Amino acid sequence: MANLRELKLPTRFGKRKPGTSPGIMPDQLEKLAPPKPVEPVKVTVIDFSPEQVEMQGVLGFEAFLESHRPSWTTVRWINVDGLADLKAIEALAKKYELHPLAVEDLLNTTTRPKADSYGGDPDVASRLFVITRMIELKGTRLDSEQISIFLGHKTVLTFQETPGDIWDPIRTRINSKGSRVRTGDASFLVYTLLDAIVDHIFPVLEAYGDRLEELEGTVMSGKKPDVLLDIHRLKRELLLLRRALWPMRDVVHQLQGERHECLSETTRTYMTDLYDHVVQAMDILETYREVVAGLAETHLSAVNNRLNEIMKVLTVISVVFIPLNFMAGVFGMNFETFPWKWPYAFPVFVVISLGTILTMLGWFRRRNWI
Amino acid sequence: MANLRELKLPTRFGKRKPGTSPGIMPDQLEKLAPPKPVEPVKVTVIDFSPEQVEMQGVLGFEAFLESHRPSWTTVRWINVDGLADLKAIEALAKKYELHPLAVEDLLNTTTRPKADSYGGDPDVASRLFVITRMIELKGTRLDSEQISIFLGHKTVLTFQETPGDIWDPIRTRINSKGSRVRTGDASFLVYTLLDAIVDHIFPVLEAYGDRLEELEGTVMSGKKPDVLLDIHRLKRELLLLRRALWPMRDVVHQLQGERHECLSETTRTYMTDLYDHVVQAMDILETYREVVAGLAETHLSAVNNRLNEIMKVLTVISVVFIPLNFMAGVFGMNFETFPWKWPYAFPVFVVISLGTILTMLGWFRRRNWI
Amino acid sequence: MANLRELKLPTRFGKRKPGTSPGIMPDQLEKLAPPKPVEPVKVTVIDFSPEQVEMQGVLGFEAFLESHRPSWTTVRWINVDGLADLKAIEALAKKYELHPLAVEDLLNTTTRPKADSYGGDPDVASRLFVITRMIELKGTRLDSEQISIFLGHKTVLTFQETPGDIWDPIRTRINSKGSRVRTGDASFLVYTLLDAIVDHIFPVLEAYGDRLEELEGTVMSGKKPDVLLDIHRLKRELLLLRRALWPMRDVVHQLQGERHECLSETTRTYMTDLYDHVVQAMDILETYREVVAGLAETHLSAVNNRLNEIMKVLTVISVVFIPLNFMAGVFGMNFETFPWKWPYAFPVFVVISLGTILTMLGWFRRRNWI
Amino acid sequence: MANLRELKLPTRFGKRKPGTSPGIMPDQLEKLAPPKPVEPVKVTVIDFSPEQVEMQGVLGFEAFLESHRPSWTTVRWINVDGLADLKAIEALAKKYELHPLAVEDLLNTTTRPKADSYGGDPDVASRLFVITRMIELKGTRLDSEQISIFLGHKTVLTFQETPGDIWDPIRTRINSKGSRVRTGDASFLVYTLLDAIVDHIFPVLEAYGDRLEELEGTVMSGKKPDVLLDIHRLKRELLLLRRALWPMRDVVHQLQGERHECLSETTRTYMTDLYDHVVQAMDILETYREVVAGLAETHLSAVNNRLNEIMKVLTVISVVFIPLNFMAGVFGMNFETFPWKWPYAFPVFVVISLGTILTMLGWFRRRNWI
Amino acid sequence: MANLRELKLPTRFGKRKPGTSPGIMPDQLEKLAPPKPVEPVKVTVIDFSPEQVEMQGVLGFEAFLESHRPSWTTVRWINVDGLADLKAIEALAKKYELHPLAVEDLLNTTTRPKADSYGGDPDVASRLFVITRMIELKGTRLDSEQISIFLGHKTVLTFQETPGDIWDPIRTRINSKGSRVRTGDASFLVYTLLDAIVDHIFPVLEAYGDRLEELEGTVMSGKKPDVLLDIHRLKRELLLLRRALWPMRDVVHQLQGERHECLSETTRTYMTDLYDHVVQAMDILETYREVVAGLAETHLSAVNNRLNEIMKVLTVISVVFIPLNFMAGVFGMNFETFPWKWPYAFPVFVVISLGTILTMLGWFRRRNWI
Repeated sequence: MANLRELKLPTRFGKRKPGTSPGIMPDQLEKLAPPKPVEPVKVTVIDFSPEQVEMQGVLGFEAFLESHRPSWTTVRWINVDGLADLKAIEALAKKYELHPLAVEDLLNTTTRPKADSYGGDPDVASRLFVITRMIELKGTRLDSEQISIFLGHKTVLTFQETPGDIWDPIRTRINSKGSRVRTGDASFLVYTLLDAIVDHIFPVLEAYGDRLEELEGTVMSGKKPDVLLDIHRLKRELLLLRRALWPMRDVVHQLQGERHECLSETTRTYMTDLYDHVVQAMDILETYREVVAGLAETHLSAVNNRLNEIMKVLTVISVVFIPLNFMAGVFGMNFETFPWKWPYAFPVFVVISLGTILTMLGWFRRRNWI
Repeated sequence: MANLRELKLPTRFGKRKPGTSPGIMPDQLEKLAPPKPVEPVKVTVIDFSPEQVEMQGVLGFEAFLESHRPSWTTVRWINVDGLADLKAIEALAKKYELHPLAVEDLLNTTTRPKADSYGGDPDVASRLFVITRMIELKGTRLDSEQISIFLGHKTVLTFQETPGDIWDPIRTRINSKGSRVRTGDASFLVYTLLDAIVDHIFPVLEAYGDRLEELEGTVMSGKKPDVLLDIHRLKRELLLLRRALWPMRDVVHQLQGERHECLSETTRTYMTDLYDHVVQAMDILETYREVVAGLAETHLSAVNNRLNEIMKVLTVISVVFIPLNFMAGVFGMNFETFPWKWPYAFPVFVVISLGTILTMLGWFRRRNWI
Repeated sequence: MANLRELKLPTRFGKRKPGTSPGIMPDQLEKLAPPKPVEPVKVTVIDFSPEQVEMQGVLGFEAFLESHRPSWTTVRWINVDGLADLKAIEALAKKYELHPLAVEDLLNTTTRPKADSYGGDPDVASRLFVITRMIELKGTRLDSEQISIFLGHKTVLTFQETPGDIWDPIRTRINSKGSRVRTGDASFLVYTLLDAIVDHIFPVLEAYGDRLEELEGTVMSGKKPDVLLDIHRLKRELLLLRRALWPMRDVVHQLQGERHECLSETTRTYMTDLYDHVVQAMDILETYREVVAGLAETHLSAVNNRLNEIMKVLTVISVVFIPLNFMAGVFGMNFETFPWKWPYAFPVFVVISLGTILTMLGWFRRRNWI
Repeated sequence: MANLRELKLPTRFGKRKPGTSPGIMPDQLEKLAPPKPVEPVKVTVIDFSPEQVEMQGVLGFEAFLESHRPSWTTVRWINVDGLADLKAIEALAKKYELHPLAVEDLLNTTTRPKADSYGGDPDVASRLFVITRMIELKGTRLDSEQISIFLGHKTVLTFQETPGDIWDPIRTRINSKGSRVRTGDASFLVYTLLDAIVDHIFPVLEAYGDRLEELEGTVMSGKKPDVLLDIHRLKRELLLLRRALWPMRDVVHQLQGERHECLSETTRTYMTDLYDHVVQAMDILETYREVVAGLAETHLSAVNNRLNEIMKVLTVISVVFIPLNFMAGVFGMNFETFPWKWPYAFPVFVVISLGTILTMLGWFRRRNWI
Repeated sequence: MANLRELKLPTRFGKRKPGTSPGIMPDQLEKLAPPKPVEPVKVTVIDFSPEQVEMQGVLGFEAFLESHRPSWTTVRWINVDGLADLKAIEALAKKYELHPLAVEDLLNTTTRPKADSYGGDPDVASRLFVITRMIELKGTRLDSEQISIFLGHKTVLTFQETPGDIWDPIRTRINSKGSRVRTGDASFLVYTLLDAIVDHIFPVLEAYGDRLEELEGTVMSGKKPDVLLDIHRLKRELLLLRRALWPMRDVVHQLQGERHECLSETTRTYMTDLYDHVVQAMDILETYREVVAGLAETHLSAVNNRLNEIMKVLTVISVVFIPLNFMAGVFGMNFETFPWKWPYAFPVFVVISLGTILTMLGWFRRRNWI
């Protein structure tokens, strides 16, 4: 039941009531009251070039904003965990010239995955803005978190809803000299991040495949009458998963075809490979959905089959005994002048009874009921 | 049941019988008899520029028509509440050179949402004409009202069926100096109006999400036999909602791609964002529709399941007692020469009875019925 | 049942057996034996220009063919009611250089609605040929008639299967000076004719909407067991209606995009509006079809629900009385040596009976059956 | 059941095992062992020009191959009945430079209908190669035969699986001077042949329409319990018919758009008309398929309805008599000390019985069961 | 049940955990620990030109890599059986400049069939990379193996998961002088390999066709109650087959349209033919799927039909005997003052009984129950 909760449309970002101004300008952010006591936002910065790498957690945020990037870096990756500290986001939005509409989407954590490209205009900074979702299974519960990525010429900004992510292996690879991500440009880093997100979908799918297999066994055995509820729940979760995956497919497809100045040709080749992975995930998901749909139908048929069988038993036994009962009833009547005062009455009754039973059973056998 | 009413095709605008002239020229409007006693139409005019703003309710309509707009305005927004006063609409249509076909669509309150662009021709005024629907929940009833918007170079005309709208926050924002709508052009105002309409769909969807969740609980508990009716009704309402949303999606998509002289480049960027919102709304709606469809199927299976269970109980008890009853009947027969005159007859009967019962129950257990 | 008749493919035009020559040349028409005694064909001619109008029923057909059109006419509209008089059609086909394939389609009254444009070739006359269907409800029966329209530069030819049409209001408008159709060109007249046909679909849809609503009430009340038949019939009729509407939509869409020399730019703008109307009709129809489909499912579920309830009643009463009956049977046995010679036997029986009943009822209540 | 046979994939042309060389070169044909004793292939040649026509059955095949066509012919049509004589086919393939892939498809009688155009290359002869299926009803069995057509500049080659075809009316028309096929070019002849094939689909559809109508009557009457089997069979045959028609539609569509040097402009105009016919056939077929699908559902509902009714009868009668039976059982008990020794016992019993019956019936009436 | 296993997503290539570097560079392969003890990889090389052919199993792998190809060869085909020896694959990848992403896909044996073209860039070797699946029935189990094919200008590399393939006939044809594959170029060899793979699908489909036919017989006979399970299983296998075929269709379609420098024009013509075969296979498969879907529905209806029949028997017999039983019960009551002391009581009882039976039977007949 719990899963339906996730279907509910979360209220759009608290500050924006229907009818209020679309887009959020950096200086408006400040005025927005924080939805809960501000958790400190964790900002980490990684600067790297093929020769050198430097990682730092940002403590003095103001100092960081005023400092310039080291001249040797080819890529700077700024990762922000948590969206509560609007002041920090405002500062970053100002410094990196993020588009107000992008900032609004980034704060609204239910935005549909999408890729927007800004630029081409002298007064708009050239940015590629990607929203995607990181899908995880927490226990058996499907959970997802919005990830927002800005790609500039030499800078990547990522925003996550909560701390803790799946990108540690990437950080390790950035550290190891000569790795492809280390020698690549900023857009290659974005590709690597997206690739990690897509690769994390496969274990989730595998878990659903296992549940599906188990459910199928249960349906076939017919032992658990409320298997229906499980089918319904699985169907629902796959539907939710699909709703998350489908736009991600669109995003990768768009990135693969996009000719944006921040996106190098090499990265686009890799995006094609990534697209194949997303399509494969969708493929598996659609197969699961079709199997689950068939399962519901099979279950219905199986229930009907069993009802049929039950009715057969009832009918066979009722129908055999009904005439016998009647006969017994007749012989039990209290008439005065009766043939069954006659001494052979009982044997005759037995013979007739057996005859009736055999006739009935023969007829049922001919109809394939027993 | 009430909802089906809305499915009915409302009679098209009273004055236009099939076969009458298509399009309504301004001077024809006058001749059309009003469908009901004319309610006074409420016209309000807002003139604004980044520096100045002026709002007025129009009382002297003729005077207003003859007056010219102040020279300082960058945008004039004329809002008309109510479509009954054909004379006023005629005057506006003449003054702002609205196309006859657009006027017809505007008066017919069941027009499918659409966007038409006029112009490109020297003798046709350059106008963008948008019809959309404002969707609301009145109590639990889905209600919608047709909104027609004309966009000229510096003028926006909006027509509503009934007074009272969702644009008050926009009016407030126009009043506050420096807001984006205040500094924007006429097409940005149109975007803002449409954005408000689209944003109002989300609370409606949320209400349906709640009803869906509740319904799901009811189906699973199996306590309310006429839940079917509720499912049918919800399905129907979602269908109606979809019929309203789908063409709105087309409208926004068209506006986003349209290169019309009245539509500034900035506004088109914002329209892209609006399009994402509409698509998200459609997405949620389609998910709901799929869940509801699955719910009907689940309900059917659940009913069958319960029938199965009922039949099991009936069958088990009938089948256990039928042979016993027969035996009792046999021993109740009035023959003269019987073994059961024999004193141990009763204990024998009891033993046979218990044996039958146990055999039966064992057989049922083996078949997983009890 | 009657409606299925219309589904049957009518034999294609009697004269054309499979394998015979495709297309019908004017001089072949003469040789074709009339399918039934020739009903006189009614031909009416309307000549009009903005200044003048002249209508005449044609009596002397030969004389008419030889006469030339008055020099003042801007549009000549020739309407032919009935397709039986092949000679007349031959004469017209010759005079107005109609393409043989068009003539074949015109005579075959089951042609799929379509628009063909001839011309572009020096030796083929420039013509736009439109086939459409006029849909009507005769009583509760869906009826449709093929309408064929030829558009030349200044001439419109229309062919109807039977006399009597829906174009009288248009004739009136032609008569009234200054009306748009009067001042328009030939293609505008064609638009007007098509518009009338499309507008006549809406009352038909409305009638189906009413029937659907009524049917829904019946299904929900559960009072009429053969409602199924009505659902099936309605589903069928909507299917037929859809089969007629769908190609009409294609026709209008094609006309809207067609750049044919006989089609003026103004008319094409109006065709766009017409297309919106057809799409709206399709939209409503598809909604109805979806509602009807859901209705069949709801009916099935409702029947199952009621079966469930019936079985509950049967089961509850059977199961309560089966053990009681058995007990009564036991006490009715004719053993000699029995405890129930004992005087308190009857009260004991009553107590046990009541106990059994109460236990059973309690158990049913716990299972939510009563 | 027999129809399923046709679903089976026939083994592809016996000589070509998976992995063998694709395409069949003329000199390979000779080596292929004939699948059965060679039936003599019947070859007929028709040469015609607007002035002259000559038909001949070919007896001396070698002589024929060496002879040249008369100089006066505009079109030569060679028709081959039977595919068993590979030598003859080899000779033709060599003489008319047929592409090896085309020869393979021609011999494999289960090729999907398609149109391939060869040429454009100096060393490949310009040919249009069309494969289609001639659909017939043999008794009630759907039968189809592969027809392969090669179109050169002035030559048409047709290959049929078995002798006997539907083209006799065309031969007659070729004979009659002045007919359009006689005055047309080779591509017009191909059009005429295809038109005859498409026109033959309509009587088949009509037969299915009749069966559908009959089946519908049977379902509604509910008299034949195994109507289900008939529905299944009809569904299946329509599916097969569709599988044959769908690619034919593609073929005609392709021909209509193809700009091949062997295809004259006039013929392409006629192809458009042919395309309309194929689309109409598909249209009717899809309508039938939808009706059949609805019929299966209606049947299921009807069966459920009847089950419902049966259960009502059983329940009403059981429930009325169960308490009465119990009462009779009670009064039949053999206690010594009983109130029913009392003389008014019987009338009391009758009164209670009648009361019970009336109460029950009233209750059922209130529930709308009787 | 076993089939579900194949649905499970196999873990992606062991070495690549989510988050690790995408693509595998040749020198990384060496470091990857082999998933199991390395089975020796079997490499065979075939060099051929129209005049000469040479086949060799490679024993000294290093020697082979250093050697140059004979100058007379037009095509070199290197086939690798088994993917366990990463060192060998590394050496080949280096020598033939395979793209890292392609190597990754090649090693991951669950890659979705696809065709990637590399090249167009001066520093990327021009290669066409095709992944496809070879589908086989092992017993009744559907089995598939990934085949990866690299096409260079004069070289074809193929990688198979396991030794043993379906290409022996092709090897024979390469050996026979003058065969088309022998005289063709490298791309023609690739076509031949793909053609063999596609041709192998047809026997698999045929086997499914047989099973489907058999299943249909079983459903119709109604003799096997768990036929449902078989339907479910067949549905599932067809779904899996479809999942394998669908991307293969895309691959061939892409190759047919691809203009890659390694792909000759002649080969592309043949690819068109191959595409027709794949489409035909899909066509048959979709037909099977539709038949199976209909079968499940038919089965459900058949079960319901039979339930109906069983209930009729139960109802008829119960309803006939219930009143008789009641009468017998009444006459069995132990009242003192009874009419049935009267000597004609028994004949009267018999008459009433017979009357009841006949009335009942007549009523049932009127309702078409018997």
